[in-house]
Amino acid sequence: MPLVRISVSEKMPVEKRKQLPQIVYDAMRASINIPENDLFVAIHTHGEGELVADAHFMGMQRTGNFIIVSITMRRGRTVEMKQKLYQEIARLAQERIGTAPDDVMIVLAENGLEDWSFGKGVAQYVAAQQN
Amino acid sequence: MPLVRISVSEKMPVEKRKQLPQIVYDAMRASINIPENDLFVAIHTHGEGELVADAHFMGMQRTGNFIIVSITMRRGRTVEMKQKLYQEIARLAQERIGTAPDDVMIVLAENGLEDWSFGKGVAQYVAAQQN
Amino acid sequence: MPLVRISVSEKMPVEKRKQLPQIVYDAMRASINIPENDLFVAIHTHGEGELVADAHFMGMQRTGNFIIVSITMRRGRTVEMKQKLYQEIARLAQERIGTAPDDVMIVLAENGLEDWSFGKGVAQYVAAQQN
Repeated sequence: MPLVRISVSEKMPVEKRKQLPQIVYDAMRASINIPENDLFVAIHTHGEGELVADAHFMGMQRTGNFIIVSITMRRGRTVEMKQKLYQEIARLAQERIGTAPDDVMIVLAENGLEDWSFGKGVAQYVAAQQN
Repeated sequence: MPLVRISVSEKMPVEKRKQLPQIVYDAMRASINIPENDLFVAIHTHGEGELVADAHFMGMQRTGNFIIVSITMRRGRTVEMKQKLYQEIARLAQERIGTAPDDVMIVLAENGLEDWSFGKGVAQYVAAQQN
Repeated sequence: MPLVRISVSEKMPVEKRKQLPQIVYDAMRASINIPENDLFVAIHTHGEGELVADAHFMGMQRTGNFIIVSITMRRGRTVEMKQKLYQEIARLAQERIGTAPDDVMIVLAENGLEDWSFGKGVAQYVAAQQN
């Protein structure tokens, strides 16, 4: 169920951008236990000067390749699972598209099972609980 | 007070896109009890390959017409109200712009009354509570 | 740690848009006690008819200059701090780029310390707590 929004510079080459959904999906599969094919990602591109991060906050060396990965998911993942998630996203982004780990910011938000409809106008996880 | 963000493909015809705010507003009026004229919607358009959803997860038949409706609102709506909201958004999207119910994902996030300023630099709902 | 998303019309002049991150940063520094250089902002531009707000809800006179400032931050700020934040954002937006206070909507969302990675695939605030 995670919904992933990824903010990138419009200068990021399209062939790199398009690998981001699979990168985050693979990282989530390896860390926070999502079901197969649970892939929902919106990539937001930002013009020059419209994706802004301090270059050094928290000891990083950020560049124009900076990206923000925002993930909304149901409550309940442990701190350890979240740590593994961060590690995996950063690792795969570096391995597959050469994004430096310093350039990957990740922010999580949590909600409830009743806060999701995957289609057909139905709250699938509520229906599942009631059956 | 809901703040609605809707992600659509840039290929969705403009005349359909522009009906989305009214569709979601009418659905919220009919389900979660929002006041008249409480309409705040940002539509985000995504380039090819930048709005990604698994074609079949949870038993759907998703197409290039897939949209994501993200709604932030204060805490307190019941599960039944949320279910009605999903049903109404999907129903009206199909009726008015022909979007298949399988192509409508909806995700909710909740916050507090003090988390909203509608203008003038004031937290209107806090002020209202204190009066 | 706040992550700030600002939605503006594509018609907002670039030289005004580019002042928004500093405006919100300065307001946060003056109100909610963020550390120096804690600046992370994504500006989203919306086409005509795609940033929609009721012109008068809650007694405002909204115009085409309407903007939405969404801020995600850790739980724990008081209502008074949030009120000061709203006041400061509206004040500085008017002072520096001439945006009317009626045109500034602000919405907050909160999460936990473990929900942030500022880079390197690490949950910096968790590591800090454990040391």
